Amino acid sequence: MEDKFLFAQQLIREAGQFIKEKMTEQVAVTIKSQNDDLVTNVDQETQEFMIAKILHHYPEDHILAEEDGVRHPIKDGNVWVIDPIDGTVNFVVQKNQFAVMVAYFEDGVGQFGCIYDVMNDLLLSGGVNQKVTLNQQEVAPYQSKPLDRALIGCNSGLFLTNEFGVTHLISHTLGVRVYGGAGISMLKVMTQELMAYFSHIQPWDYAAAMIIGKQLGYLVRTFDGQEPDFKTRQKVMFLPECELKHFENYLSE
Amino acid sequence: MEDKFLFAQQLIREAGQFIKEKMTEQVAVTIKSQNDDLVTNVDQETQEFMIAKILHHYPEDHILAEEDGVRHPIKDGNVWVIDPIDGTVNFVVQKNQFAVMVAYFEDGVGQFGCIYDVMNDLLLSGGVNQKVTLNQQEVAPYQSKPLDRALIGCNSGLFLTNEFGVTHLISHTLGVRVYGGAGISMLKVMTQELMAYFSHIQPWDYAAAMIIGKQLGYLVRTFDGQEPDFKTRQKVMFLPECELKHFENYLSE
Repeated sequence: MEDKFLFAQQLIREAGQFIKEKMTEQVAVTIKSQNDDLVTNVDQETQEFMIAKILHHYPEDHILAEEDGVRHPIKDGNVWVIDPIDGTVNFVVQKNQFAVMVAYFEDGVGQFGCIYDVMNDLLLSGGVNQKVTLNQQEVAPYQSKPLDRALIGCNSGLFLTNEFGVTHLISHTLGVRVYGGAGISMLKVMTQELMAYFSHIQPWDYAAAMIIGKQLGYLVRTFDGQEPDFKTRQKVMFLPECELKHFENYLSE
Repeated sequence: MEDKFLFAQQLIREAGQFIKEKMTEQVAVTIKSQNDDLVTNVDQETQEFMIAKILHHYPEDHILAEEDGVRHPIKDGNVWVIDPIDGTVNFVVQKNQFAVMVAYFEDGVGQFGCIYDVMNDLLLSGGVNQKVTLNQQEVAPYQSKPLDRALIGCNSGLFLTNEFGVTHLISHTLGVRVYGGAGISMLKVMTQELMAYFSHIQPWDYAAAMIIGKQLGYLVRTFDGQEPDFKTRQKVMFLPECELKHFENYLSE
């Protein structure tokens, strides 16, 4: 496992370098489901680059990834979950504020995860029996603080419609931040720049944060308190476990 | 003027260093007008540090600054406009994502401005007859692009209430970003990571961006199309001049 964890950290940095090189070329943008759901040739090529490396080293393993319908079931064997570029809109418009994410599961049990904020060169990684580090520095577990001294990361749609009462909860904090990427937002939760993150996201968006976060006292839950399904896009919260009851007092179903 | 501009750039970097040193000590937070309107001893001490340096070098000049009611009228003589920490909530909670800002006016005419994103060490500066640079690299003027390929920075309150139709306008873009600071948001407008920024802000929040932005094709306007008054907190937009008419088609009074 130690070997695979080191391999994953090297892989994700290589993927970041791959993306940076591709950014100097013309990027081809395609709209997926709707106007703000973009994919680029770089998303696809980075995913191919990562899958090829994984299967070269671990030919028996399986892949669940964002692009091109690569969807091995999470509970079946050794599964790598890949998001080649999380925050594609930021990647296209800002050339900044996007992440590469990798998570590794064995028979549905999360082993380790890595989130790499490429342009700021911040690599957060950790897992079962693996220290959580940010660029080699150990990351502290969540320390409780009052809600009125916290910031919350949120998807703009949930915030605008007060879905599940998120806007009501946020009104009791110091405010909302909207960064446009699950990876960079969840990284900021784990460095305690945000207390929690609410969004409407896919398995490859939450897989790494779920594993890393577990070591630090965080969890991913749907708004009705369930574990996410690793199959569909779901509205979820990523938050400190010890604040869950407190949050539920403000959130409605 | 060249001397003053160089002095200002050195001053703002020194202020950033001063803040970083103070961050290692206990920070005392005080609530100003409301729960999310914070001030710290570091805001106040940084302002005092900056004012002392300015008046030591330029004893005839005047100051308009955020803290402690230092409010020389903008049109009277040589006036330095100072925001010692813009994004105080981010400073307190995130220890990141805040800026120091300085702007210099002569009889109401903006001469130069500097915005320093302290933790990311990004210094944007420029003015009349002074190139606009980001860490010594020249910054390109605004290049027009379609609204549906743009991101907009916005204060969360304006976005939530669709005040002036901002949320309607944003619905025609790739989305909103909420960063929690005018300085870092307006810097991102000028590096074209955002197309525009809408917020409810004070003179020291927009003074530097107004002067720097003018060199690159941007302006600050209230939602009824006026120049800001440099006296009160106003709801304003910071946007490319060439997009103003286009924006007004989406915005209502």
